[in-house]
Amino acid sequence: MSTWFTRRRPAVELPRLTPRRPVATVRVDLHEVMPEPVPYLGQAAYLQLEQFETLSRVAAEAADLRAKSLISAAAGHALSKHQGIVAELRRRGDDPAEAMKPFADEIEGFSVLIVGSDWRETLLSALVTGGLLDDFFIRLAAGLPGDVGPRIAHLLGSESGQEGVLEVLRGEIAADPQLASRLAMWGRRLVGDTLLVARSALHLSGNRATDEERIEPIFTELIAAHTRRMDALGLTA
Amino acid sequence: MSTWFTRRRPAVELPRLTPRRPVATVRVDLHEVMPEPVPYLGQAAYLQLEQFETLSRVAAEAADLRAKSLISAAAGHALSKHQGIVAELRRRGDDPAEAMKPFADEIEGFSVLIVGSDWRETLLSALVTGGLLDDFFIRLAAGLPGDVGPRIAHLLGSESGQEGVLEVLRGEIAADPQLASRLAMWGRRLVGDTLLVARSALHLSGNRATDEERIEPIFTELIAAHTRRMDALGLTA
Repeated sequence: MSTWFTRRRPAVELPRLTPRRPVATVRVDLHEVMPEPVPYLGQAAYLQLEQFETLSRVAAEAADLRAKSLISAAAGHALSKHQGIVAELRRRGDDPAEAMKPFADEIEGFSVLIVGSDWRETLLSALVTGGLLDDFFIRLAAGLPGDVGPRIAHLLGSESGQEGVLEVLRGEIAADPQLASRLAMWGRRLVGDTLLVARSALHLSGNRATDEERIEPIFTELIAAHTRRMDALGLTA
Repeated sequence: MSTWFTRRRPAVELPRLTPRRPVATVRVDLHEVMPEPVPYLGQAAYLQLEQFETLSRVAAEAADLRAKSLISAAAGHALSKHQGIVAELRRRGDDPAEAMKPFADEIEGFSVLIVGSDWRETLLSALVTGGLLDDFFIRLAAGLPGDVGPRIAHLLGSESGQEGVLEVLRGEIAADPQLASRLAMWGRRLVGDTLLVARSALHLSGNRATDEERIEPIFTELIAAHTRRMDALGLTA
């Protein structure tokens, strides 16, 4: 049991930072841990497709029509990002489906983990995991060759519909006093699993001390941004 | 039993036309049967949202990544149409959620009817019902006041991702010889239910003879276009 737990959460530290404003970007040499462009693009494309599927399923479950529209809009933005990355793969002459395929098991497994006990929890999943992974892949994009990096960073940083999702969740929290603590707990659980997905994208040396030194500054920033998203909901990260 | 059947399918005739090219548009005075702009836009917006939900659910169920991408793209087009109609309602100063609400029960009921026994059947549902209802609402748009009509007709007639959906279904039919006859039967069942939704949009006089005279030419054209879509899959309508 302890071995299994260790295996699933190898070295993910969750410092409880609560910065109220963006922290300065830490310079990390990403070339050491940077994946090859095709796996990078394949994984990023698949994650956006999964984000689209999660958000559209939540949109279908939400009964309120304004919520449906706002959540669907966020789904549409994830789909646009997926399509943009697919276009980038095609431009390179790579088959998008082939590039995505190696990540199928991991991402389908992840998408099961982030299904909450109701649609509000799953919507928080989309917000938290989508935000973290977009941030992470934007950061990694700096290590891509040529002009692919800036293009992908721009695409991933474009409109995500996050404000609409925050509006829906704020409305739900205001209407149900029990929900806030449940969502805060759920958010904490999500971070660990999401950072594992991020970690899986990296080329690690296998030397734990060296690896941690390289990725810790990135993960610290990701968690700071996560904390700001939870703050925006009035929730403690 | 006979009464129930008659009630559910009041006067929908399904002539077995098989024209291979677009038929000439029949002039029908739509003002007699035209709904008011707000219900028209509300129903059209809700149907696109439902189409988005159906297609994104099917995309999530499809295992093949190319199929997933093509079906998701079609879902994205339905979402764009939904958003365009919502924008039109806002431009008029109407609340989109209020305009859509009266159609919730009917459309949610319809969306249950068009769930097939597997994702291929449901994908055919999206193709058949989406195609028929887009055609129908484009036809009706001519009766809208001001420049709303041309704008909505242009929006509904824009890219729908239909070619991608046809590609996926053709691949499935080629891989499974049993599928063609099952889909042909399913397609026939869908038409009746879809024409009932279309019919519900119209202001009818209650005088069956007058009503049928007015709507028959429209429905004949819709079925001709439906037959062409089934032809494109090698299926008999």
